Amino acid sequence: MVMTKVTITLIHITTPSLPPMTFRSDLDIVATALDHQVARARARAVPVLAQRPLATLIDELRLDHFARQGGLEGAALHDFMGRYLKTIINLHQPGYLGHQVAAPHPGAALGALIDALTNNPMAIYEMGPGAAAIEYFVINWMLEKVGWTPAPLDLERLGAAGYGGGVLTHGGSLANLTALIAARSKVRPDAWREGNRDDLALLAPGNNHYSIERAVGILGLGTRNIYQVPTDARGVMDPDALPRILAQVHADGRTPLALVANACSTAVGVHDRLRPLGEFCRTEGIWFHVDGAHGASALLSPEYRHLLDGVELADSLTWDAHKMLRTSAVCAALLVRDHRALDSAFSQEASYLFHDKEQPGFDFLPRAVECTKSGLGLKFYLVLAALGERGLADYVERQYRLTADAYRRMSGIEDLDLPVAPESNILCFRLPGTDARQLELRRQLLVEGDFYVTSTQFQGQRYLRLVFMNPETTLDDVERLIARIRRFVRETHGAG
Amino acid sequence: MVMTKVTITLIHITTPSLPPMTFRSDLDIVATALDHQVARARARAVPVLAQRPLATLIDELRLDHFARQGGLEGAALHDFMGRYLKTIINLHQPGYLGHQVAAPHPGAALGALIDALTNNPMAIYEMGPGAAAIEYFVINWMLEKVGWTPAPLDLERLGAAGYGGGVLTHGGSLANLTALIAARSKVRPDAWREGNRDDLALLAPGNNHYSIERAVGILGLGTRNIYQVPTDARGVMDPDALPRILAQVHADGRTPLALVANACSTAVGVHDRLRPLGEFCRTEGIWFHVDGAHGASALLSPEYRHLLDGVELADSLTWDAHKMLRTSAVCAALLVRDHRALDSAFSQEASYLFHDKEQPGFDFLPRAVECTKSGLGLKFYLVLAALGERGLADYVERQYRLTADAYRRMSGIEDLDLPVAPESNILCFRLPGTDARQLELRRQLLVEGDFYVTSTQFQGQRYLRLVFMNPETTLDDVERLIARIRRFVRETHGAG
Repeated sequence: MVMTKVTITLIHITTPSLPPMTFRSDLDIVATALDHQVARARARAVPVLAQRPLATLIDELRLDHFARQGGLEGAALHDFMGRYLKTIINLHQPGYLGHQVAAPHPGAALGALIDALTNNPMAIYEMGPGAAAIEYFVINWMLEKVGWTPAPLDLERLGAAGYGGGVLTHGGSLANLTALIAARSKVRPDAWREGNRDDLALLAPGNNHYSIERAVGILGLGTRNIYQVPTDARGVMDPDALPRILAQVHADGRTPLALVANACSTAVGVHDRLRPLGEFCRTEGIWFHVDGAHGASALLSPEYRHLLDGVELADSLTWDAHKMLRTSAVCAALLVRDHRALDSAFSQEASYLFHDKEQPGFDFLPRAVECTKSGLGLKFYLVLAALGERGLADYVERQYRLTADAYRRMSGIEDLDLPVAPESNILCFRLPGTDARQLELRRQLLVEGDFYVTSTQFQGQRYLRLVFMNPETTLDDVERLIARIRRFVRETHGAG
Repeated sequence: MVMTKVTITLIHITTPSLPPMTFRSDLDIVATALDHQVARARARAVPVLAQRPLATLIDELRLDHFARQGGLEGAALHDFMGRYLKTIINLHQPGYLGHQVAAPHPGAALGALIDALTNNPMAIYEMGPGAAAIEYFVINWMLEKVGWTPAPLDLERLGAAGYGGGVLTHGGSLANLTALIAARSKVRPDAWREGNRDDLALLAPGNNHYSIERAVGILGLGTRNIYQVPTDARGVMDPDALPRILAQVHADGRTPLALVANACSTAVGVHDRLRPLGEFCRTEGIWFHVDGAHGASALLSPEYRHLLDGVELADSLTWDAHKMLRTSAVCAALLVRDHRALDSAFSQEASYLFHDKEQPGFDFLPRAVECTKSGLGLKFYLVLAALGERGLADYVERQYRLTADAYRRMSGIEDLDLPVAPESNILCFRLPGTDARQLELRRQLLVEGDFYVTSTQFQGQRYLRLVFMNPETTLDDVERLIARIRRFVRETHGAG
């Protein structure tokens, strides 16, 4: 023990050195501006997006001025909000047909506000018992929807086998990463301490989300050790090809880390056939991870949950609330059939810290890549609790039906190539001609601002991609988009 | 190209299927409840923490009821808020002396609200130009404080050498992980594709944050390949020991991945001497990572930035806004001296997607573990812009001085062992007797609710740990805590 004596001038501080909070008045300024913006977006009275140069925005928002001088409150904040809201992409505008991110329910924003002002980073129970209880409940609610056994509320029963587990994490990429960490700890329990041995292989379709390949790279497993499972023309894995791929893995002297399946694929939204894949993995003792970041929400719908038939055979499932559960980014769940796989993912022994502390709750800390973790459960729960689980199912069903209707409508149009009948709310199309022609159509749409669409690479070609995320997009919007495409076709006839 | 024709019933949807938003009225309910709670917490009128069992909270909050039925709005929301706010830890209560998480400035909550309702996941510029511009500005502002060259606003100049880089990420653990990914890509550019070769070693003090060891485990490098650099009794690394450790690394046939230094250490808040460490790393060509998650905010203060003297010699720096920059969790920066190290961290070639897209902005996507990423910059910027950089420096200085004063006051008290003169706002102490006696004092404090303190393992013994995070904690609070400790000593005299 070292006792260093130093002389310090004693400055007695009795009054706060910071100005009083102006929370309510500033909140009112922000809320009024947001309310106005959302209303105008919903009424299609503002463009979805009006991109301007980064340097212009930094200048117009006077970012440097306020960073140096402070004072962004009251009238200055009002002015800032007006400028800032001209720089956003309006997901609440029904012409938003872009990336798989929710046009959020306001409950998510309320949850974010509560979480941010109270700032309860609940990965340690003490640091937010209510927020931790909500995450515990949300994970159990999700486990139930998958068909797995929820964790006991009686904490004395924790630790034994026989129930599932999960954790909310800051995005689907982290959820997928965590799944592969758990798989590695199961297949190679000594890898954590000893390092990789260059003998693992991941089985995956070529069309999985890029976070899967990124996770393999991060884990130091080598992206060349991803064995691509053949798919049909839509990108759905062929279960019958698995024995051959597995034989190749073994012939190369490798052990399978996991098989990853899509539910659904990012590009065109098709679902791998989870039951035969899961049965194969069970037989062969292979970890089966389902990336349901987008599609797992169909589990809520009696009409669409067949798309995930067999999901209960998986070992782990990624399910993003910020995609099809109307929650603001980011809020993703990683779920596991057996909680022990997650509790031991980050080290060889499970860390039931709560027993050491004799606390009345549960620490999510040992399950997460993060240490400090926001109260993500609150954000999603306030959406779930406002709409009810049936309300969320209604949303999923409405969007999936709308997409099927849009497909039917658009597939009747000459010149439009729709490669895949949609299974979810993702719809890809292509005009005759070059990839550049597709991108030129997208460029024009973005400049005009009535629609925001993305593009994707599918079967070697560039497609435009509509994702029907906004709950107020209708077939009338689709008609307007078709009319715009027709005009583009006329104007560029023969130009492709 | 496969064109599957399917028959789908056309359901024309013209009206929104979801109820109208009740954003403003529900926001008012939430804001009023929060305002009341924060005011009572600041007035010390509520306990910092009143832990109750997880199952009780799930029941009292009626989590299951609302998940099934929906309807959590209006009066039900008002009731829920009352119940929920009884389950939180009150960081705004000046008796909060716990984990290194901000008692946030309300600007952070406003930023979170804006981010959550607009939901602009800005890692792709199109998905939030304003939010991306703010992150770009914030990173540059931080680079300037470190002494590194900010990135050019003229995007034509991007890609060349000669400036720094960074990314905001969901927490310091992810920032540290990203730093080691960047280091590995520099030292072993083929590891991403080929996998690890079991030949790297990390040099670190034993007292670094657990996320460093966790990162090594995640990366598949093997935690046994961490070479511990000797420290003095306070836990400060001995720069003179480095040649010997490096010789051992080489003798073991390994190559150094990086040296990690603390600024400051988690347990007692002392700073490694960055200049000699950095000079050694420069000479030897070793990646130098500084974990400044907590302490980097001292860079804002002319009075305290000497604690990080030499930080500009580092290759990478973790700096959390949710610790000493009064921002809600989570919001962390990973900064690098040379942007190219981060731009190529996740693959061998830099992915300047924006050139392909001819967009007027910058994509942070290639720099982040996350794919979908919240508008973290907004949360921090609204704090910075409200207080100004001088206001944030005032906060850091006030807390550091208060801690020095508390140390001086407490070190005069018989029976209190204070092992380290604080360099930041972390102060550890211990009563005579067993570790169990320290934990019993903590247990009693938590049950009473006037104070929340944590404990830490230091030099083989259990200490109680005060972190002066709350800007309204005063020496009067310290006096009250001392009085409480004295009572505990009397009541347990000879019991230790």
